[in-house]
Amino acid sequence: MRLDEISTPSRVAADDEGVSTAELGLAARNHGMPLEAMRYDLTPPGLHYLLIHYDIPFVDESAWTLRVLGEVDRPLTLDLATLKAMPARTVRATMECAGNGRARLEPRPVSQPWLVEAVGTAEWTGVPLRDVLTAAGVRPSAVDVVFTGADHGVERGVEQDYQRKLTVAEAGDPDVLLAYAMNGAPLAPQHGFPLRLLVPGWYGMTNVKWLSRIEVLASAFEGFQQKAYVVRQRADEPGEPITRIAPRALVIPPGFPDFMTRGRVVRPGPVTLEGRAWSGRAPVTLVEVSVDGGATWAEATLAPDGGHRWAWRRWTHEWQATPGSYAVTARATTADGEVQPVDQPWNRGGFVNNAVHQIPVTCLA
Amino acid sequence: MRLDEISTPSRVAADDEGVSTAELGLAARNHGMPLEAMRYDLTPPGLHYLLIHYDIPFVDESAWTLRVLGEVDRPLTLDLATLKAMPARTVRATMECAGNGRARLEPRPVSQPWLVEAVGTAEWTGVPLRDVLTAAGVRPSAVDVVFTGADHGVERGVEQDYQRKLTVAEAGDPDVLLAYAMNGAPLAPQHGFPLRLLVPGWYGMTNVKWLSRIEVLASAFEGFQQKAYVVRQRADEPGEPITRIAPRALVIPPGFPDFMTRGRVVRPGPVTLEGRAWSGRAPVTLVEVSVDGGATWAEATLAPDGGHRWAWRRWTHEWQATPGSYAVTARATTADGEVQPVDQPWNRGGFVNNAVHQIPVTCLA
Repeated sequence: MRLDEISTPSRVAADDEGVSTAELGLAARNHGMPLEAMRYDLTPPGLHYLLIHYDIPFVDESAWTLRVLGEVDRPLTLDLATLKAMPARTVRATMECAGNGRARLEPRPVSQPWLVEAVGTAEWTGVPLRDVLTAAGVRPSAVDVVFTGADHGVERGVEQDYQRKLTVAEAGDPDVLLAYAMNGAPLAPQHGFPLRLLVPGWYGMTNVKWLSRIEVLASAFEGFQQKAYVVRQRADEPGEPITRIAPRALVIPPGFPDFMTRGRVVRPGPVTLEGRAWSGRAPVTLVEVSVDGGATWAEATLAPDGGHRWAWRRWTHEWQATPGSYAVTARATTADGEVQPVDQPWNRGGFVNNAVHQIPVTCLA
Repeated sequence: MRLDEISTPSRVAADDEGVSTAELGLAARNHGMPLEAMRYDLTPPGLHYLLIHYDIPFVDESAWTLRVLGEVDRPLTLDLATLKAMPARTVRATMECAGNGRARLEPRPVSQPWLVEAVGTAEWTGVPLRDVLTAAGVRPSAVDVVFTGADHGVERGVEQDYQRKLTVAEAGDPDVLLAYAMNGAPLAPQHGFPLRLLVPGWYGMTNVKWLSRIEVLASAFEGFQQKAYVVRQRADEPGEPITRIAPRALVIPPGFPDFMTRGRVVRPGPVTLEGRAWSGRAPVTLVEVSVDGGATWAEATLAPDGGHRWAWRRWTHEWQATPGSYAVTARATTADGEVQPVDQPWNRGGFVNNAVHQIPVTCLA
């Protein structure tokens, strides 16, 4: 047997094809953030979303090093103590999976079947990447910086360690970190212990976990994941590379849920609708709320960002509930005038879906 | 609209009916433990399985109290500081959801669609329940002790706070705790902050989270969850109440995975198969391993329990892999002679499934 016999090509589900056991297997491993956790500015440990391509590697800290090599004057091998001794920086960032919303598309791309919960916010502490690259002495010939993680697997027939790149210019952003702490604690195994890349404002796939190697190349990097994370209509086109997080607002589901459907129940009277909004592109400047599925919108009160440019912002809206059935939703607009769509354009990988999320709510008599 | 119109009756999926969006919504919230986390004696924070019936309640510790009332001589209202000042006990326990394995049944009961990952092990610290009951003075008339959590929702048309009971005799077990710490840290919100019930050896549904009230009754408690967590063939029979965890062994998937199918790849040579085995009934005394889907079995090496009667035990087995296709599996046998089944008897709720789990493994040439 060969790897390309074990590993199936990408595909799109047939009309009315339910979620498969393989998709369910991914959903059981890679969990979302329960939406009520948007109450917290910082997502408590264990509630932040997770997407792990292969297995969580078991890294022995005492044997671990980060190698920095390639188009540099001084190749480096750094242990964790050395990295922690360098000047540190902390950045609060909302991270979202590029595939968030995939399972709501029709037809459904067959992969990790996210609904809307693939998000979380944390304070990440580490060494600015550019300080490490400066120490290594990046040569003028450098084009791309490639980040290799310790997770190993096969995907669409290709055996690989997980790898993503930044351009030299992108890698020079002072907010890009080699992070060893999350919310003040060492990284959990599932979040990349002992070291991960943190690129605020970018979708999760760029934030390589379990970093083992940084290689500076004199040419453009064309690795598997660069070609996989693209927006395209057909498998045979190169597509548009995925970078920054599209604007989104989500609502904390109001009232209380039905166990099975997760539909919500409220009683008549004032209901504070509350949620978060974020964007890795231009900042969110407006959040609007609708209780009629988008027929009419009202402006929500948007809390200040508190200096945390890359973190979600809280919003609230007072709703006077009266008996009936509602579809509660919110949408974000950015300083650039980008508005979250009500209907989602489709793409084959199911990426960069930021269509508004509607929550069915029943107000009892 | 009434609650019984919002909330649908329980049902079983049609033949070949894929997993629904509602089931997927539960899977996105209630995550399993990635099987590679069986490497750890204690499941790291965030990797322990979670099953939350309604929402994670937001509990303000400063306003929180536990009330103990009913058939007692001295009703109590206890704050967290008072509970922490009482003599504490720490118990290491493997917890498993009673619905683990549900989505592998045919036909599939429609509910939280667990495959096999609904398990985790932690050290729980708290006050023995019997010490609190002794302080309250349980009357001779007492029959059942009812535990009420703060999570509120509707289920099959019934609005409720989550509630379960123990008999007075069961509640007197010195290992049953009112737990305020997990692995030495305060409970995370999703694990029941600030206080939960911990009943070692029982399935998860009994371990009520976000405890707010303990009521001692002079009669048998017949609450919703007592009638829901039963093994039965038809919805109209009362069924057999679910109590202790059936024996199970699971394998850490060897080699490396394919992203989409999670099928495993190894190369020829020695492969250490490793996993965990546990039982809330009689202790596990034997673990056997098969690489041919159960046609032949070999005895694994079972590590001692280290005095942790309610925790999983590590087992290992050396396998000499040669090119080909394999189905790797393990089964546990208890001191009572109970053997994990290869084929699972079906029940309508999809509970107490402990059939062996087979992992497809390809050994490359």
